[in-house]
Amino acid sequence: MFSALDLVRRIASVELTPRDVIDRCADAIAAHEHNIGAFAALDIEAARRAAQAPGLAMSPLAGLPVGIKDIFDTADLPTAYGSPIYAGHQPKSDAALVAMVRRAGGIVLGKTVSTEFASLQPAGTRNPRNPAHTPGGSSSGSAAAVAAGMVPLALGSQTAGSVIRPAAFCGVAGYKPSFRLLPTVGMKCFAWSLDTPGLFAAGVADLAFAASAITGRDLRVDRAAPAAPTIALVRTSIWPQASAEMQAAVETAARRVEAAGARLQDLQLPALFDEAAQAQAVIQDYEAYRALAYEIDHHRDRIGPVLGVQLDKAAAIAPETYDEARRIARRARREFANLMAGIDVILTPSAPGAAPQGLESTGSPAFNRLWTLLGPPCINVPGLVDTSGLPLGVQIVGRFARDRIALEAALFLQRALE
Amino acid sequence: MFSALDLVRRIASVELTPRDVIDRCADAIAAHEHNIGAFAALDIEAARRAAQAPGLAMSPLAGLPVGIKDIFDTADLPTAYGSPIYAGHQPKSDAALVAMVRRAGGIVLGKTVSTEFASLQPAGTRNPRNPAHTPGGSSSGSAAAVAAGMVPLALGSQTAGSVIRPAAFCGVAGYKPSFRLLPTVGMKCFAWSLDTPGLFAAGVADLAFAASAITGRDLRVDRAAPAAPTIALVRTSIWPQASAEMQAAVETAARRVEAAGARLQDLQLPALFDEAAQAQAVIQDYEAYRALAYEIDHHRDRIGPVLGVQLDKAAAIAPETYDEARRIARRARREFANLMAGIDVILTPSAPGAAPQGLESTGSPAFNRLWTLLGPPCINVPGLVDTSGLPLGVQIVGRFARDRIALEAALFLQRALE
Repeated sequence: MFSALDLVRRIASVELTPRDVIDRCADAIAAHEHNIGAFAALDIEAARRAAQAPGLAMSPLAGLPVGIKDIFDTADLPTAYGSPIYAGHQPKSDAALVAMVRRAGGIVLGKTVSTEFASLQPAGTRNPRNPAHTPGGSSSGSAAAVAAGMVPLALGSQTAGSVIRPAAFCGVAGYKPSFRLLPTVGMKCFAWSLDTPGLFAAGVADLAFAASAITGRDLRVDRAAPAAPTIALVRTSIWPQASAEMQAAVETAARRVEAAGARLQDLQLPALFDEAAQAQAVIQDYEAYRALAYEIDHHRDRIGPVLGVQLDKAAAIAPETYDEARRIARRARREFANLMAGIDVILTPSAPGAAPQGLESTGSPAFNRLWTLLGPPCINVPGLVDTSGLPLGVQIVGRFARDRIALEAALFLQRALE
Repeated sequence: MFSALDLVRRIASVELTPRDVIDRCADAIAAHEHNIGAFAALDIEAARRAAQAPGLAMSPLAGLPVGIKDIFDTADLPTAYGSPIYAGHQPKSDAALVAMVRRAGGIVLGKTVSTEFASLQPAGTRNPRNPAHTPGGSSSGSAAAVAAGMVPLALGSQTAGSVIRPAAFCGVAGYKPSFRLLPTVGMKCFAWSLDTPGLFAAGVADLAFAASAITGRDLRVDRAAPAAPTIALVRTSIWPQASAEMQAAVETAARRVEAAGARLQDLQLPALFDEAAQAQAVIQDYEAYRALAYEIDHHRDRIGPVLGVQLDKAAAIAPETYDEARRIARRARREFANLMAGIDVILTPSAPGAAPQGLESTGSPAFNRLWTLLGPPCINVPGLVDTSGLPLGVQIVGRFARDRIALEAALFLQRALE
């Protein structure tokens, strides 16, 4: 894997040029893409041309190549949203976040595979850690491309667990920022109250660097040793759904951060948060039935079986049921803010376990739904593996809009696991 | 003007067919469109074909023709977002709200003129009440098309004052629902925290009927006499910016509702709400600089002068300034909920006065910014005119997510003005 920060430092010291970085990514793509299938569209020659732009090395992203989940519109590459309905579709403009990546001096190397409309409908990408396993979804291609060293950075999105889960399965760092920190404009919508753009990179400091460069916010965590945070260990009521190895990984992470100087406490979530996790599914499906109304009404036969059944059921959700789910979400967000008083971050599983075998499922977002609904920053921290060598991701969940603190705590955890 | 409810009742009694309604709209378009310029695209023949669909008369919208602001994507009509950058652009799919209109049995008759990206940059539509005056903006074409009897219903959107102001200037009923009641998916984004789709119709009961039909929610107010509401008269701190005739119109409306049995009280807003009105502009412009990043970075020379200067200035807004504006917005929303305890709705001006002369400006959204930021339902109620016969709109502002109560109070006011 390429560390974005390391590459930028080497570009700054003129040890590498932006063009050299593109070439290294092209080499990795030539070596691995036929086994992995991370890309839906690629234009390496265009990236090489873009890498010649004068002054690029001085820009915030210094010409780093970026993989863009194929759920974001791009004016120069086709965008199919993972759906045969949009095969070959060429948008007129870049999504806002894509334009912001380019503004910051990032180079779009290609579009990475998304599951169909970023849903649970599996796509064909394989896990670089073991190609017999799913890379997770829906940001399958972005997580796999970073894990295989084909790009140092990639954009994804999460509506239930589509950033944190594939990052965990592929053993990379993944960041779902606070809701609305990154714009969804020009990103195919699944559920407007939940869809959250996110980032993938080799490590936590790379994520924080990229988020700073793209947003112009002070989110970097690489300029001093991370402070020891106050961490709440949250097993959640679905702890029994986590594999024994995942449970052990979380306990290991807890012991390591405590040994490194973090203040650790147990936190049990009130029952309201179980209601909130269920409300996530209601809100998601009610909104998806409307967000995808055109596709459902005109192309129902070209929607995959998993997503199709989900949308058929969604048609029956009454506005009153949706409104009640939104009220639960509002109460849970308020209660979450209270719970987090005196706590910097939460430590909790990123997924029920390692990446499941086979490509028939992208795995379960059960350990992500609640956090996506609540809206705080979530970071998958890589470093732990199961007995077969597959990554076991644990996540840091911060306070809403306190993204830098969450990233710093995630870096603290990453170092404690090294 | 055509009342949507009246047309639907006549279709139900087989006095009219959906095709007859299209023909009447076509007659009005033939008579007035060359003077008004309400449409950016029209397909009357396609609408006539759609009107033959079996069972259409039994659908919620009974085949009523609808004008769609040209900021919403349509799969069968070009969508230019009011910008030369997108001249002739043909989206692949319908915006979610357009698909919901069709699901409900509405027929898309044409795209109505939007100002450039729904901004303050004026477009060419004229006011049907007096073609020497602006129809207001940015939903210029939708308000004018309904006012001229060219459609019974139209979709618009409001980021500052783009539904309520043109409705007021054109003397039609306009409805900006609670934030997120109608989806923005597939609508060109200007500012994601503010953009709110809305509706235009002849009268308040028509709006409530259409909103019910499109959303499947119980929002109708035509089945019983509207209950007498508790109304707070809010002059706001910018009252001196309202013309003498507008001030008199609001006072007249207050006297009439009181005479009709409403409980009326004065309400002075705390200073926080002045800060909130200013925060609206900060949030709007910060987000627009990102939402329109592609257009700014690739087609700056094809952006109109009013919008161009606004976006150039927006580039300088720091993330911290934006974050502070969002904190003010959150505080103001909480305080607004407290203020409204015991009050059903607010009565306040829709605009500083009647439609200004000329097409060089679409008028001021000063009396709309605060309410768009707070997110509650707003309804422009027509019925009053100035000495020259131009409409003077007053608005009803409800409590967040209490849209039916707000619509009922608006109908109460409309009847009191008749």
